[in-house]
Amino acid sequence: MKIFVPKETADGETRVAASPDTVKKLIGRGAAIVVEAGAGARSRVTDEAFEAAGATIGSASDAGTADVVLKVRRPAADELSAYKSGAVVIAIMDPYGEDAALKAMADAGILAFAMELMPRITRAQVMDVLSSQANLAGYRAVIDAAHEFDRAFPMMMTAAGTVPAARIFVMGAGVAGLQAIATARRLGAVVTATDVRPAAKEQVESLGAKFIAVEDDEFKAAETAGGYAKEMSKEYQAKQAELVASHIAKQDIVITTALIPGRPAPKLVSAEMVAAMRPGSLLVDLAVERGGNVEGAVAGQIAEVGPARIIGYANVPGRVSASASLLYAKNLSAFLETMLDKESSALKIDFDDELVKATLLTRDGKVVHPNFAKAAAAP
Amino acid sequence: MKIFVPKETADGETRVAASPDTVKKLIGRGAAIVVEAGAGARSRVTDEAFEAAGATIGSASDAGTADVVLKVRRPAADELSAYKSGAVVIAIMDPYGEDAALKAMADAGILAFAMELMPRITRAQVMDVLSSQANLAGYRAVIDAAHEFDRAFPMMMTAAGTVPAARIFVMGAGVAGLQAIATARRLGAVVTATDVRPAAKEQVESLGAKFIAVEDDEFKAAETAGGYAKEMSKEYQAKQAELVASHIAKQDIVITTALIPGRPAPKLVSAEMVAAMRPGSLLVDLAVERGGNVEGAVAGQIAEVGPARIIGYANVPGRVSASASLLYAKNLSAFLETMLDKESSALKIDFDDELVKATLLTRDGKVVHPNFAKAAAAP
Repeated sequence: MKIFVPKETADGETRVAASPDTVKKLIGRGAAIVVEAGAGARSRVTDEAFEAAGATIGSASDAGTADVVLKVRRPAADELSAYKSGAVVIAIMDPYGEDAALKAMADAGILAFAMELMPRITRAQVMDVLSSQANLAGYRAVIDAAHEFDRAFPMMMTAAGTVPAARIFVMGAGVAGLQAIATARRLGAVVTATDVRPAAKEQVESLGAKFIAVEDDEFKAAETAGGYAKEMSKEYQAKQAELVASHIAKQDIVITTALIPGRPAPKLVSAEMVAAMRPGSLLVDLAVERGGNVEGAVAGQIAEVGPARIIGYANVPGRVSASASLLYAKNLSAFLETMLDKESSALKIDFDDELVKATLLTRDGKVVHPNFAKAAAAP
Repeated sequence: MKIFVPKETADGETRVAASPDTVKKLIGRGAAIVVEAGAGARSRVTDEAFEAAGATIGSASDAGTADVVLKVRRPAADELSAYKSGAVVIAIMDPYGEDAALKAMADAGILAFAMELMPRITRAQVMDVLSSQANLAGYRAVIDAAHEFDRAFPMMMTAAGTVPAARIFVMGAGVAGLQAIATARRLGAVVTATDVRPAAKEQVESLGAKFIAVEDDEFKAAETAGGYAKEMSKEYQAKQAELVASHIAKQDIVITTALIPGRPAPKLVSAEMVAAMRPGSLLVDLAVERGGNVEGAVAGQIAEVGPARIIGYANVPGRVSASASLLYAKNLSAFLETMLDKESSALKIDFDDELVKATLLTRDGKVVHPNFAKAAAAP
């Protein structure tokens, strides 16, 4: 089995889909691995490091003889045309609303696996790219905010007076939000957070942040009902929105992290809320590539909007590329190992395995994933 | 008494020498204060905020009628020509090796006070601009390093494996160094530090960092001898240099903070030491404007040198301008208040006061400070 790890071609993609560790591990399972020259350069992995782990350094043309291609991003058209029919290609495939791209992968005859569709079950935790990358995005959102901010985060009591702590509000307490809370707390900021799930209150508070919510009877009932409770009433949502709006006006920094798989990001911060902030305020929109949580956010830019600036960097995990690649590579190799025969180390895909069923997009020239097969088949 | 606060004209100077707090306080002492329009814009103080505190918003031409000018940087030639003879001008004067500039201030007939010459005595702690600004520089050095670094600082134990903590070495454990240590520790880095004063070991360790030193009998004797012990022997210095060199080669990030008043910064990190670091390593040189602690550092730039990048930003306190201005303004107003008559609130300078003697550079057309009078008088 020959594995190929290309240099990513997408604009601004700094990550790489293998690490010296995963190369060593997969070679131990009987694979031969070719890494394209310079593939790890932007994640601080030299060709020499890949070679020392047992890989051969090659060029883009090695893709044509590979049984498995490990990638970060969905292959572009010119990459697809180089792959051999029947090759396994594993990446973050970004499949929603991308029917033409899915059809192109089907036409190329590859088995395309989308890592972001991995089910969130215990067995697949080690393969969870959404968590591994969101964790780093949450950290980096706070570093980027601290870098743009014109004050120190921690309260500083000096002989010449006290510098107040920065006030940071984190919207969305998933993996990214919780890491943002933890990092902002580490740096000494006064941190508040909110989430549509009342059950998130406990996690937020365990990190030393204050949960912002209208804590009426409906909230209290939902809080104890557990993780994915029913949607809150319209009345409750209106009261909560009002509370959040007045809270944002008093913050120095707002970090938004709300994503809904397969759908545009929910709008959490309106232009009016941004306009009500104080001069010099910052927002960091981690959902900007999905349409954004903040009105006025622009992907890849810091947008000046009234009194505030909205940081809308794209590919935030790629801004800590060395860490992001390390974890991403591990996610991929762990998944690939489940598809190897225990005896022969050859590829032996069990198409009934729930991990395979959840992530396999294309096979035998067709889009086979239930979420996308219909759209792709439409004229 | 009329006080004027100009907009700073020096390139890249983001700070301002007054805050709404200090304006209010000085007006309470009977002063009339004119702030140049836009003076606080880069420190997040609006003209409206200065007005609300009681100041009048004016223009650069208001300098000509001011009894006191509060500034951040030494006045430029065109500013000097606008001041009235006998005006008090208080700023960070950067007097060493600047004889022509000192003569120009003397010729303008002003009383120029250099805040950085304030004696380090209890009474003057609130006026200590070196401490207030160095504290913020130490914080910001770590934020700048985290921003340029391609990995997360804290150890992260995730389902996909462990991201190791960043290793940070702080050279010089003065105000800036101690704040750098504290900030890097907050962010979860593994921090080591060193200082030429063995007595600094205790302070470094109290912040959770490890002190790097050859701990032989000479060191132990010096450690207990207190703050400013005698210089260590040549033999000791050689052993220590060797230890530090091998330590630097294992670090992700080195932050240098060593300054000697009135002299070029000591060279701590040679080109060989930089070359021995691993690919992707970073150095932050807080002494770059004084010639630099790191060979290859360039003021105002990130220099790529072999496997590493050396961050050499100028005016690092100005990179957290809102906090820096707040503290700096307080330093200045506290000093100015000591020069006001208790009854009439008029200027009444006691030229025998040790604070005045330590900081006054020029008076009655002459350079009067003992450290500079001779050089300035030379042909």
